[in-house]
Amino acid sequence: MNGKSCGITRKLYLELTPPTEEDSRSAQQRILEAIEAKTDLDTSEMSKITGSSGNTGKTIIKIPLDILRKLHPFCQDVNWKLTVSLAWDGTCWQVVALEAGDTSGAHYGLAVDLGSTTVVMQLVDCESGEVVVQESAYNRQIAYGEDILSRIFYSKDQPERLEEIRRATVETIVTLMEKLEGRAGIPLRTSSEALETNAAEEDSDGNRAGRCISMVVAGNTTMTHFLLGMDAFCVFSTPYAVQADQPGFLKGMELGIPIPGYVFCYPGKANYLGGDIISGMVATDLHHRDSISLFFDVGTNGELVVGNRDFLLCGAGAAGPALEGGVVKTGMRAAEGAVQHVKLVEDCGNGVLTDVIGGGTPKGICGSGIIDLISELFMHGILDLRGKLVPEASDAIVWRAGTEDSSEDRAERASDSLGCGGDAAGQDGEYAFQYAPGLYFYQSDIHEFIRTKAAAYTMMEYLLSETGMNLNDVGDFYMAGAFGSHVDVTSAVNIGMYPDVDPVRIHAVGNTSLEGAQKLLLDRSVAEELPEILDLMTYVQFGAVEGFLEKMTAASALPHTDLERYPSVKARLNQYA
Amino acid sequence: MNGKSCGITRKLYLELTPPTEEDSRSAQQRILEAIEAKTDLDTSEMSKITGSSGNTGKTIIKIPLDILRKLHPFCQDVNWKLTVSLAWDGTCWQVVALEAGDTSGAHYGLAVDLGSTTVVMQLVDCESGEVVVQESAYNRQIAYGEDILSRIFYSKDQPERLEEIRRATVETIVTLMEKLEGRAGIPLRTSSEALETNAAEEDSDGNRAGRCISMVVAGNTTMTHFLLGMDAFCVFSTPYAVQADQPGFLKGMELGIPIPGYVFCYPGKANYLGGDIISGMVATDLHHRDSISLFFDVGTNGELVVGNRDFLLCGAGAAGPALEGGVVKTGMRAAEGAVQHVKLVEDCGNGVLTDVIGGGTPKGICGSGIIDLISELFMHGILDLRGKLVPEASDAIVWRAGTEDSSEDRAERASDSLGCGGDAAGQDGEYAFQYAPGLYFYQSDIHEFIRTKAAAYTMMEYLLSETGMNLNDVGDFYMAGAFGSHVDVTSAVNIGMYPDVDPVRIHAVGNTSLEGAQKLLLDRSVAEELPEILDLMTYVQFGAVEGFLEKMTAASALPHTDLERYPSVKARLNQYA
Repeated sequence: MNGKSCGITRKLYLELTPPTEEDSRSAQQRILEAIEAKTDLDTSEMSKITGSSGNTGKTIIKIPLDILRKLHPFCQDVNWKLTVSLAWDGTCWQVVALEAGDTSGAHYGLAVDLGSTTVVMQLVDCESGEVVVQESAYNRQIAYGEDILSRIFYSKDQPERLEEIRRATVETIVTLMEKLEGRAGIPLRTSSEALETNAAEEDSDGNRAGRCISMVVAGNTTMTHFLLGMDAFCVFSTPYAVQADQPGFLKGMELGIPIPGYVFCYPGKANYLGGDIISGMVATDLHHRDSISLFFDVGTNGELVVGNRDFLLCGAGAAGPALEGGVVKTGMRAAEGAVQHVKLVEDCGNGVLTDVIGGGTPKGICGSGIIDLISELFMHGILDLRGKLVPEASDAIVWRAGTEDSSEDRAERASDSLGCGGDAAGQDGEYAFQYAPGLYFYQSDIHEFIRTKAAAYTMMEYLLSETGMNLNDVGDFYMAGAFGSHVDVTSAVNIGMYPDVDPVRIHAVGNTSLEGAQKLLLDRSVAEELPEILDLMTYVQFGAVEGFLEKMTAASALPHTDLERYPSVKARLNQYA
Repeated sequence: MNGKSCGITRKLYLELTPPTEEDSRSAQQRILEAIEAKTDLDTSEMSKITGSSGNTGKTIIKIPLDILRKLHPFCQDVNWKLTVSLAWDGTCWQVVALEAGDTSGAHYGLAVDLGSTTVVMQLVDCESGEVVVQESAYNRQIAYGEDILSRIFYSKDQPERLEEIRRATVETIVTLMEKLEGRAGIPLRTSSEALETNAAEEDSDGNRAGRCISMVVAGNTTMTHFLLGMDAFCVFSTPYAVQADQPGFLKGMELGIPIPGYVFCYPGKANYLGGDIISGMVATDLHHRDSISLFFDVGTNGELVVGNRDFLLCGAGAAGPALEGGVVKTGMRAAEGAVQHVKLVEDCGNGVLTDVIGGGTPKGICGSGIIDLISELFMHGILDLRGKLVPEASDAIVWRAGTEDSSEDRAERASDSLGCGGDAAGQDGEYAFQYAPGLYFYQSDIHEFIRTKAAAYTMMEYLLSETGMNLNDVGDFYMAGAFGSHVDVTSAVNIGMYPDVDPVRIHAVGNTSLEGAQKLLLDRSVAEELPEILDLMTYVQFGAVEGFLEKMTAASALPHTDLERYPSVKARLNQYA
């Protein structure tokens, strides 16, 4: 009750007066009235705890059956001094746990970014608003397919297989809870036994019901379908009408997640514009601004939103796994051994400085490294504006047979890699640039990557043109995703992936999906605002846009066929020339 | 959708437009928006379906997880033509069942009077508001004790035994559902399989999910505790603070009752003033009137309410099982063979006319018969005003040994009787009046009964005096309970059980507990009004009232020590004299 925030959960310590013949209110009413009295202390709190529901302005608090059954002999046993855990269910507050004495300080929640590859979970202290600890793990769904589409086909109209994938999803979440418990030294999971029996007693694992009450999950539409056990074929097949896009607050136990409260799943706008992006809106606050902003979550897919408090135009498209190190032959995820930054120190390009994650021997190259590399090659004239390597410009360019990347090398990278390499290499061989000992960046890799950056740029350009605006009308650019955080802005501008605007207007905002989840966990009003955000949004299917491919072709030069769009790059090129 | 009423459930037939690329709303939104559109057709309906929750006036409708999981392939399979069942959960509407095609006409609900001895259930057609069929059954809790107190002690602090009683309660309800199904020829129960699997298909029993959606239960505080699986010792032990008195809407499945919607349990005011009485308030509308009314539910216990729209003063006390045919040695429930009315045709009392239920040989006497009998004996001078038989006044009075009522006779009656006979008979014997061949009404029976009527009268008198009013200030008297329905008003006045007022002001209103349950089932606004009714009520513990016993003693004469209170009886006595 520090008044700092009113999230989707509350813990309140109640010192109830024991019943007498003069005051023989039921245990139920005694608790409900004590909660109301407690929240009355602070009227601003009151208005916060009072839901948007209830036209009388009266707080709606319910005690569900399992807790009603626990009241006796619990209340007497704890001498009527107890802590209640309250969880918001979307319409009212539910009393979801009772604990002996004052445990109101041990009040936690979980924020989850449910990615198709990686799931990230934060343990949040809901009293202080601080993140206690964060963990991530591979999504166990991967066992049913590396990419989302394989998993969807695996489970399509096969309820047993869908159930396998649902379980894998829940297990990933529960494993992360275990990891967080271990690292924070705080019991978080509520065993179903603890919920069934008297919650006053610690169970055999030392766990207590009510320490961690609720969870907020932000994931794309497929991930949300899988978590809920819904067939996701609809996400990828015309007419792209999904089963459910606004699941709201669901009982944790109903989903198999060991918390006494609720799991809130961020709603989605469309099949390819899911809860992770809506969560990103909340994290970046686009919908509250007067000025126009552009939000871009770049990953295997690119999701894009342009707008302000009056409108949000959005779209999504395959930005290409190139950005996460896929497709590219020596590409890898941003993990230990990945080249994350590149600088050419001599004009001939033989002096390549690499910044390797973990500092050891380079094993491959990740997204931000690729952008640096292509930018440097282009700036030094080793790559022409059509994206072709100029063999005579550097001794580091060699002719390589397409198969020379040994299978051992590939196996070594596979553990950190998203997918297999591209197969655009010429049959007989192709030029390649050696960026580190034994590691080559191929002509075909370059073309693959340019397609990706052209798609990304074209999506931005197209969405803006739809609003009748251009890049100069945009105040701020928010580049979300792990990828965005490590990208050198100048490099990305040089290659025409980012627009040529003042770099201070480009913000790498990291995992906004996770951040939005945390924000909602700590501020219930966010949940109530979501319908407005969804209403503001207009979704464009890029696949259905006429002329999109032509625009993309124009964006497939370095930085763009229309160099006037990139005055700063032009200036830098002149500087090198 | 006939607009006649808006109960706690709705069935709506929806013809949804199948998704297209232009309209790719999710199945979830498609259904929610169709429901809203349907209710928009009629604005009065809209305001009814829109809960008191939602300060935006927006309808709150939720689709829970089990139904979300069913959307695919259900919607396609039924060509997007389906009927949704909506159940009010106290705060919003929940979509609890989906059926193929238009089944909106098959929309039923259940009203239950959960008595400690008898459980009565009505199958209500929620579209027409008509009662389709009604059934009753003994409460299976009886296996754990004939009277409530035995059951409470049996299960006190014994969770396994409490669970036995809870199961017995639920089984009684489920058995009644089966009976109603059989009589009405309508499948009502939703098997848990039907809820788990595709509800579009009839299950092997031919049942469909969604035919019968929700249930309203009115029962006393102990019955509600047992139904919910809560220890009920608190109801009978000081300080009389119960576990829960306002359980509200609980999922049927959570309680073990095979309906897809909710079970609403009428709230109670106090330990001895439970949901059955609050339901009675709703049935008789006391709380809406300007004039003062008196409500009296006479049974094993007597519950009493006096008041109008401004106040409701209430109390409860042991009226005595005498009224239901208990205690009295040849007493029996109002079943076949019971003498329900008595008339003495000769002054000497030898000509006894009896009206026997079923018309056959009399087997015993029920409450209304006893009242007639005592009234007739008194009017004919066979009983004096102290309640003593006057042996010289009638040849039908004989001296009987206390044990002469043979065990066979008693066994015969036992099947219809509430309990064993009283044991107030003198050791050596006592006077008795033979009211039918071989059937005697004993002096000790008379005293037992007079105690009961004195208690009933004193409760009325006391409550009225607390309000500063007297009987003449009361406009209408509502006598509830099966007992009240058969009592001859003049007889009850003659013996001083009912006050001496114009008989047209005394209304036998029958099973108001059941009637109030049915009313709420068909009118959701009743549920929202209940907190106001509870607030209007002030509860008096008669046990704690000073001078109560003295008042009762004064009321223990026939009709009362103060004969001036009974001018009409005085006039009738003069007539006979």
